Amino acid sequence: MIVILKQNAKKPSVDHLLTDLTGLGLKTDLISGEQKQIITLIGDVTKVDIESLLARECVENVRRISEPYKEANRKFHPTDTVIEVAGQKIGGGHFCVMSGPCSVETEEQIIGVAERVKAAGANFLRGGAFKPRTSPYAFQGLRAEGIELLLKAKQATGLPIVTEIMSLQHLDLFADVDVIQVGARNMQHFELLKELGHCDKPILLKRGLSSTIEEWLMSAEYIMAGGNHNVILCERGIRTYETMTRNTLDISAVPLLKQISHLPIIIDPSHATGLTTLVEPLSKAAIAAGADGLMIEVHNDPGKALSDGAQSLTPDQFDGVMDSIKRQLAFEEKTIG
Amino acid sequence: MIVILKQNAKKPSVDHLLTDLTGLGLKTDLISGEQKQIITLIGDVTKVDIESLLARECVENVRRISEPYKEANRKFHPTDTVIEVAGQKIGGGHFCVMSGPCSVETEEQIIGVAERVKAAGANFLRGGAFKPRTSPYAFQGLRAEGIELLLKAKQATGLPIVTEIMSLQHLDLFADVDVIQVGARNMQHFELLKELGHCDKPILLKRGLSSTIEEWLMSAEYIMAGGNHNVILCERGIRTYETMTRNTLDISAVPLLKQISHLPIIIDPSHATGLTTLVEPLSKAAIAAGADGLMIEVHNDPGKALSDGAQSLTPDQFDGVMDSIKRQLAFEEKTIG
Amino acid sequence: MIVILKQNAKKPSVDHLLTDLTGLGLKTDLISGEQKQIITLIGDVTKVDIESLLARECVENVRRISEPYKEANRKFHPTDTVIEVAGQKIGGGHFCVMSGPCSVETEEQIIGVAERVKAAGANFLRGGAFKPRTSPYAFQGLRAEGIELLLKAKQATGLPIVTEIMSLQHLDLFADVDVIQVGARNMQHFELLKELGHCDKPILLKRGLSSTIEEWLMSAEYIMAGGNHNVILCERGIRTYETMTRNTLDISAVPLLKQISHLPIIIDPSHATGLTTLVEPLSKAAIAAGADGLMIEVHNDPGKALSDGAQSLTPDQFDGVMDSIKRQLAFEEKTIG
Amino acid sequence: MIVILKQNAKKPSVDHLLTDLTGLGLKTDLISGEQKQIITLIGDVTKVDIESLLARECVENVRRISEPYKEANRKFHPTDTVIEVAGQKIGGGHFCVMSGPCSVETEEQIIGVAERVKAAGANFLRGGAFKPRTSPYAFQGLRAEGIELLLKAKQATGLPIVTEIMSLQHLDLFADVDVIQVGARNMQHFELLKELGHCDKPILLKRGLSSTIEEWLMSAEYIMAGGNHNVILCERGIRTYETMTRNTLDISAVPLLKQISHLPIIIDPSHATGLTTLVEPLSKAAIAAGADGLMIEVHNDPGKALSDGAQSLTPDQFDGVMDSIKRQLAFEEKTIG
Repeated sequence: MIVILKQNAKKPSVDHLLTDLTGLGLKTDLISGEQKQIITLIGDVTKVDIESLLARECVENVRRISEPYKEANRKFHPTDTVIEVAGQKIGGGHFCVMSGPCSVETEEQIIGVAERVKAAGANFLRGGAFKPRTSPYAFQGLRAEGIELLLKAKQATGLPIVTEIMSLQHLDLFADVDVIQVGARNMQHFELLKELGHCDKPILLKRGLSSTIEEWLMSAEYIMAGGNHNVILCERGIRTYETMTRNTLDISAVPLLKQISHLPIIIDPSHATGLTTLVEPLSKAAIAAGADGLMIEVHNDPGKALSDGAQSLTPDQFDGVMDSIKRQLAFEEKTIG
Repeated sequence: MIVILKQNAKKPSVDHLLTDLTGLGLKTDLISGEQKQIITLIGDVTKVDIESLLARECVENVRRISEPYKEANRKFHPTDTVIEVAGQKIGGGHFCVMSGPCSVETEEQIIGVAERVKAAGANFLRGGAFKPRTSPYAFQGLRAEGIELLLKAKQATGLPIVTEIMSLQHLDLFADVDVIQVGARNMQHFELLKELGHCDKPILLKRGLSSTIEEWLMSAEYIMAGGNHNVILCERGIRTYETMTRNTLDISAVPLLKQISHLPIIIDPSHATGLTTLVEPLSKAAIAAGADGLMIEVHNDPGKALSDGAQSLTPDQFDGVMDSIKRQLAFEEKTIG
Repeated sequence: MIVILKQNAKKPSVDHLLTDLTGLGLKTDLISGEQKQIITLIGDVTKVDIESLLARECVENVRRISEPYKEANRKFHPTDTVIEVAGQKIGGGHFCVMSGPCSVETEEQIIGVAERVKAAGANFLRGGAFKPRTSPYAFQGLRAEGIELLLKAKQATGLPIVTEIMSLQHLDLFADVDVIQVGARNMQHFELLKELGHCDKPILLKRGLSSTIEEWLMSAEYIMAGGNHNVILCERGIRTYETMTRNTLDISAVPLLKQISHLPIIIDPSHATGLTTLVEPLSKAAIAAGADGLMIEVHNDPGKALSDGAQSLTPDQFDGVMDSIKRQLAFEEKTIG
Repeated sequence: MIVILKQNAKKPSVDHLLTDLTGLGLKTDLISGEQKQIITLIGDVTKVDIESLLARECVENVRRISEPYKEANRKFHPTDTVIEVAGQKIGGGHFCVMSGPCSVETEEQIIGVAERVKAAGANFLRGGAFKPRTSPYAFQGLRAEGIELLLKAKQATGLPIVTEIMSLQHLDLFADVDVIQVGARNMQHFELLKELGHCDKPILLKRGLSSTIEEWLMSAEYIMAGGNHNVILCERGIRTYETMTRNTLDISAVPLLKQISHLPIIIDPSHATGLTTLVEPLSKAAIAAGADGLMIEVHNDPGKALSDGAQSLTPDQFDGVMDSIKRQLAFEEKTIG
């Protein structure tokens, strides 16, 4: 960490600051130039509050030069994390395809879709029981009943299930869920993240609507700091000024995260664009960029879906997309599961 | 709502769609031009799922032409909402100043700050007990103890208190809190909003980091649909590409919200920019634009604050800012409280 | 186009509006519902000024339902445009790789780089003679001399050259340039676009720093409306709040543009992220998403480049990236040139 | 400037770098800690190419700690710039109101509007002769004829005129124009800026659609570095994800610029939001925040304007807005002119 002092910083203020910083167990160096004075801090700076430094009379600016994330940092954990769940692996060359409807609607629907996505090659069933909807008047999901239906579909097909949690108080309902999803709107619901840090299930952490990559890793850090190291990152598009697509898929996040973190990273092309016609090319791009998996919406009858119909593939369309995905995976010498 | 059909839409698909829409109790009109066919829908369209319409084979686009919010809509509730709490009023010409530290730290600190902000003219004490921090390693607030200290400060000064809730499970701790704040990161924590819809306290709803004004009103709608009509909106800056300020204060939101909603709207210039030197001019701008109040961070010793020191005014600086605020309010013929 | 009238629109205003619209040669339909009145307009609406309609007393909103671009629109030109220049083709299955330094610096440098990129498989030489730099104190390019050096490199290697124009008054200097580039900062320099519409050279039109896809196509339309149909679109990252990458590569723009336009679309991964380590994975992703080409920065000695060194590959690194690109192209059954 | 070295930086590379930096006339300090090595650079770093430093094998990151702008920097020019033109002053307590139509359309129109805005209290006439329009099919302005009409209106009313230049080749036409406007789309048209640096007229420099404040000041620096110090900055809204307003007015830019620069800064509430109903509250907010002027669109018949009708006030509406502006200015003890 580097503390840049004001041009007119007075010696007593600076001495006071140096004493306080040394008191935190940090090694300090004061460098004086003609225009600037700088203090460099070496040591564990994670507990230094930058904002408070900035409020000091003598401080002009503070610049961090090391990453604030530790558990999620590849520098300290060079080997790829491989998540193992229900006989499936994710990361380190193991690819996953999580498919299913935006919302679980009926037993017939979810089992029907589960059978079709399994047949097409998906190795996880996704489906929403608790649904975060912008409007209070929109369908809010089947909630507890939705999870029961997902478990029936799991029993029928053997596919492990992924579903979203929206509040801590529902945690008990997720006892038999294989992967717990934290949605974009809850990426900084820190109380939830802390609690998930104490459970033993893999957590699929979606990137917030306009979160930076660093904030996203810090949210992973919340879970990992609690002891749960099974975090899967999921890029699902960020908010920009562009309106032709629902969000803007940040494809660069994939190779960048591969460099700075060891966690698996998957892509959700359905939410990223809201356009079914873009799912296939973006799935291929995700694989080419090095992603560890895909999350794709599939609905038996998108025109009558209770949510997000426009971005859901039909099972037949999904068959076609999976053919393309499998060819691309074969080219990259990766396998599903 | 307007449904724009594809150029090559087939009659059976269109007829099927018309039947389904009529079945929802909507009045439909099909207009045919040379290039386009359009269906207009009249009636209660809040339950129509636009995404599912978009998934229909024959549909090219869907455009909403009425607002999706009802309770928060000035069209249906033309009179300004005036919140009454602990002898203070907010809205309809009544101005509020909510001040205090980012985090409650000690009894001495919070009572000391409360006395100073009261003396300067603030009519609410704000202070964080539960703190949403990006890093799990940063100070997380005194939590339950922080609320107890706030209540002591309330007892000592008579100032009603405003503090943030981060999780449903803490709701019992807020029994004696006067105004419950929902922070930017929880603006779409829908389970929390629903529950707050059933309580009888005013809710201060901060705008999400990158929420649209419409999404913000829809979150207010979640609370109001539950029966709690005491919602105060708080603009605290949105995320943009600009880095000189922490966020970008969307000042236009104030007069715009005054036109489309009846809810009070206040401004938080401290979080909006992260720069103490901008608090005074932006407070004045907020009043000039028609805001119903301000939320301003004040800390007894910003250089040693446990969070957000850089944007906190000292009590002496706050005295100066309040002088300026009072003059501006006098000019606008508004009063605090 | 759809004109939505205000709830309280008065009959004389509406009649007046209908008369004016009919006078523009448009077919109008007035539909009245309980809550809304709507006018639909059929005909050539490109000359209707939406802003002026919005200023009418009786108008609440106006929504366009057809695209404002004609020449660049796949609906009217279903076949892929294939650009032919100097024996090379771009588009319709023909892939291009445009490589070279950010800035032309010396004859030795540009010929040396040209030989290396040609050997590696690139089929165009790119290099900046006129350089748009944020700072007036930064190197501004060799300007006219830079173009001369590019032409020498062309002579030496046979590679056609691509270089950026920054002002109309330099147009004469581009007589022997093969492809004229319009940079991101000039995407809406309309006077320049108009003039380029009258020349017979292919124009490589980079997307503006924060331009929408529609605005980008409208800038292509400026060139095409003048008679020059040889436009190549180049996505180079858009401005967002994310700071780990210089810009955010909008990969979705590739398949989306393939659907709505017939123009070739290439990707510049160097400018999009500013990070050399991301060039290879993003090049692969671009191909997988369906791009028609790549523009990649290569410099003989990036550490001593006069501009943009950080994002330039060395010739050796470029060899490696090209191996990867060629394998991916082979998989997609596309060829360079 | 601070150069942060890689953990594994090798001594020869570092020595080489130090030699090169010293060769640029900079004073260097190498500080070694357990985790990091840092080089601090003191001296004139404006010519150091950060990108090339980043490309060095041994460099991890580079951080600038002083501003890249000199002429526009308040640190070096502490006194407010006051622009004097045609008997009017702008800046340093002198307020300006520039009003008129988006486009000059006819002699009758421009003189009529000029008379009305003068009567209401505006001290500059603005009007577009060259119009940057997104679509090539939209009205492009009367061009040379438009400037002639503006000059007639100047003659008729005595109001100095402000109008936009779009291309260097039109510069001769601006000989009698009082203030030359550079529009948002041309803020980084560097060839134009350089040329305007050699003329003796005040330049009104609008902020780019998504330019940072630093980039904006660097564009001012282009003009000032050429010798023309009469630059007026104009904030006109930036591009964000919000769609209810056309752009997002960055009101914080006003007090921030007052701190870091000595140049006058004015606000254009018409373009910032695109909504006439927001012009009055935002004009007041601009004054309260410390702006030196306003640019407001006024059209005799907005419903029939050839461009931007929706955001234009009628002369009668403008009378009302001016009453409000004058009261606010009196309160701030500022005067027009």
